[in-house]
Amino acid sequence: MGQLFTLACPVPLPATERVLLGHGSGGRLSADLLRDVFFKAFRSPILAQLEDQATLDVGGARLAFTTDSFVVKPLFFRGGNIGSLSVHGTVNDLAMGGAQPLYLSAGFIIEEGFEFTALRAITEAMGEAARCAGVDIVTGDTKVVEKGSGDGVFINTTGIGLVPPGLNLSAANARPGDHILLSGTLGDHGITILSEREGIGFDSLLESDSAALHTLVRDMLAVSMRIRCFRDPTRGGLASTLNEIAGRSGVGMTLSEVDIPVREEVRGACEMLGLDPLYVANEGKLVAIVPPEDSEAVLEAMLCHPLGANSARIGVVTEAHPGMVVIRTTFGTSRIVDMLAGDQLPRIC
Amino acid sequence: MGQLFTLACPVPLPATERVLLGHGSGGRLSADLLRDVFFKAFRSPILAQLEDQATLDVGGARLAFTTDSFVVKPLFFRGGNIGSLSVHGTVNDLAMGGAQPLYLSAGFIIEEGFEFTALRAITEAMGEAARCAGVDIVTGDTKVVEKGSGDGVFINTTGIGLVPPGLNLSAANARPGDHILLSGTLGDHGITILSEREGIGFDSLLESDSAALHTLVRDMLAVSMRIRCFRDPTRGGLASTLNEIAGRSGVGMTLSEVDIPVREEVRGACEMLGLDPLYVANEGKLVAIVPPEDSEAVLEAMLCHPLGANSARIGVVTEAHPGMVVIRTTFGTSRIVDMLAGDQLPRIC
Repeated sequence: MGQLFTLACPVPLPATERVLLGHGSGGRLSADLLRDVFFKAFRSPILAQLEDQATLDVGGARLAFTTDSFVVKPLFFRGGNIGSLSVHGTVNDLAMGGAQPLYLSAGFIIEEGFEFTALRAITEAMGEAARCAGVDIVTGDTKVVEKGSGDGVFINTTGIGLVPPGLNLSAANARPGDHILLSGTLGDHGITILSEREGIGFDSLLESDSAALHTLVRDMLAVSMRIRCFRDPTRGGLASTLNEIAGRSGVGMTLSEVDIPVREEVRGACEMLGLDPLYVANEGKLVAIVPPEDSEAVLEAMLCHPLGANSARIGVVTEAHPGMVVIRTTFGTSRIVDMLAGDQLPRIC
Repeated sequence: MGQLFTLACPVPLPATERVLLGHGSGGRLSADLLRDVFFKAFRSPILAQLEDQATLDVGGARLAFTTDSFVVKPLFFRGGNIGSLSVHGTVNDLAMGGAQPLYLSAGFIIEEGFEFTALRAITEAMGEAARCAGVDIVTGDTKVVEKGSGDGVFINTTGIGLVPPGLNLSAANARPGDHILLSGTLGDHGITILSEREGIGFDSLLESDSAALHTLVRDMLAVSMRIRCFRDPTRGGLASTLNEIAGRSGVGMTLSEVDIPVREEVRGACEMLGLDPLYVANEGKLVAIVPPEDSEAVLEAMLCHPLGANSARIGVVTEAHPGMVVIRTTFGTSRIVDMLAGDQLPRIC
């Protein structure tokens, strides 16, 4: 209802003089911050393309370049820690541009008094994740701030990848008739973090899906070089990701709720907490927009990959309702799926 | 005395289970952290080269790649703010590798409640500094943490530059007989920050030297491609920088105190506060190790550049006392200049 109202009668967001937690949510407030502050100040046409990575021509090479800071809380969670997450997150942003991830930088902001045993565990997970993903952490920096001026450790990773020739991936490429493919269950990461942070024991084996997706992307591109774009639905969830693509491409999207894979534990937790899995963060899932003629082969390639075993076709791109994502619910009704408006789950990554 | 003792009779640093402010100082504790935690975990031979930037061959291009997080306090200071500093710092790390700086990423960690007016001022200074330095901020990320979990804003910038062919710069290249050239006065940045932070009004016009040094490097390389290496003496100051080069090259160094340019205000503040300008951070100065036959021409080029007007030859590389930096004081005595041991000025950049 609220979402329908927002779309039907757009009113400006309440003016704020100060940064809110929601400005880091990956939803509408984040987009406002990007547009109103960063784009204006930096004036970079490449930045304004709003891809998850910049594509640059440097000395004859076509590079992908992307950055992410990690402030996840708690630092350790089922399925990973801030170290492994910081590698997976940036590797995935490179992979979503079709790039082969090559090199990472690592910047640490550590709070005075942080325990070395924890720092060692985090950096070792980071090194291990990097080696598994075939990337090398080649440059780094460490700052220490006084107790109370940070929160344990924050990590920035920035990555360089090599984009193969002939690729033209962009969130602006979706066309009516395209299929929307999702590589697995929604919400595993977000619900795991929330459950550990709030001390809600969901009494399950649910863990973060944090993983490096570049080999999944490689296997998908091996069967179709015509894939329109890849995105990993992290902060803001699948809903925000698809809204962004729909907006950039000037197309509509219709999803089929029954086809969207969600684990029982996640569904139960979401119901209990009043959350919608479409808005919950993932760290090891991708969504791809694929021309219909290649959709079957691409889905097959996804299902054959260990990280795509629960892949599904979850919807189609439409000419109708451009810029808008609509879902057919399991009850046979339809509702609009807007971009995340406020601040659902802070410090999820 | 304490420094002499440390060198004459090296004892292990006191074991610590927790990260101290000094681990971020750029001195000996930072080096320990790098060696004991990060190198072991990441196992990257490129990282272990200990240059200020990684040099990478990617798709036929020779790239420089470097990262820095900025936590300076206060955020605004005479001569700049955290935004301009975050551009200059990373541009300079690229420049010290002889690279032409091309692209930056920007990662923000903002504390909830931070004022938009301040964020706008910071990002505008950042954009302006980038445009002046000819670099483009092409990718970014913003995270927001709860009030009390950060301190205003922290910024990570990571840079890509292009290394021209034929360059072989390394801190391991210094040879006996080489001259040590410094591009201007020491300590301006550190003393400015300290003075503003502690509310000590030194009643002067002293301001941070924060500046992009890539055109100075370019002008120096134009007269000699045989320069051994460049370094910008930031955290840990000139003393730590020269100790690092002496150690890496297995050479000694002898400095002449009378030849080292220090502003009267900085000298006075240092005397009052018990600081040594050799350990105070700079953000717009470089030191170069230059073969003696090219030294005159390189110094001339430095003096002709607006950022090198106070350049001087401050010492020589020696075969004697390898790994050790010695200074001839204005009183005619000699003393050993060790790497910064503890934690002189936290959050200086």
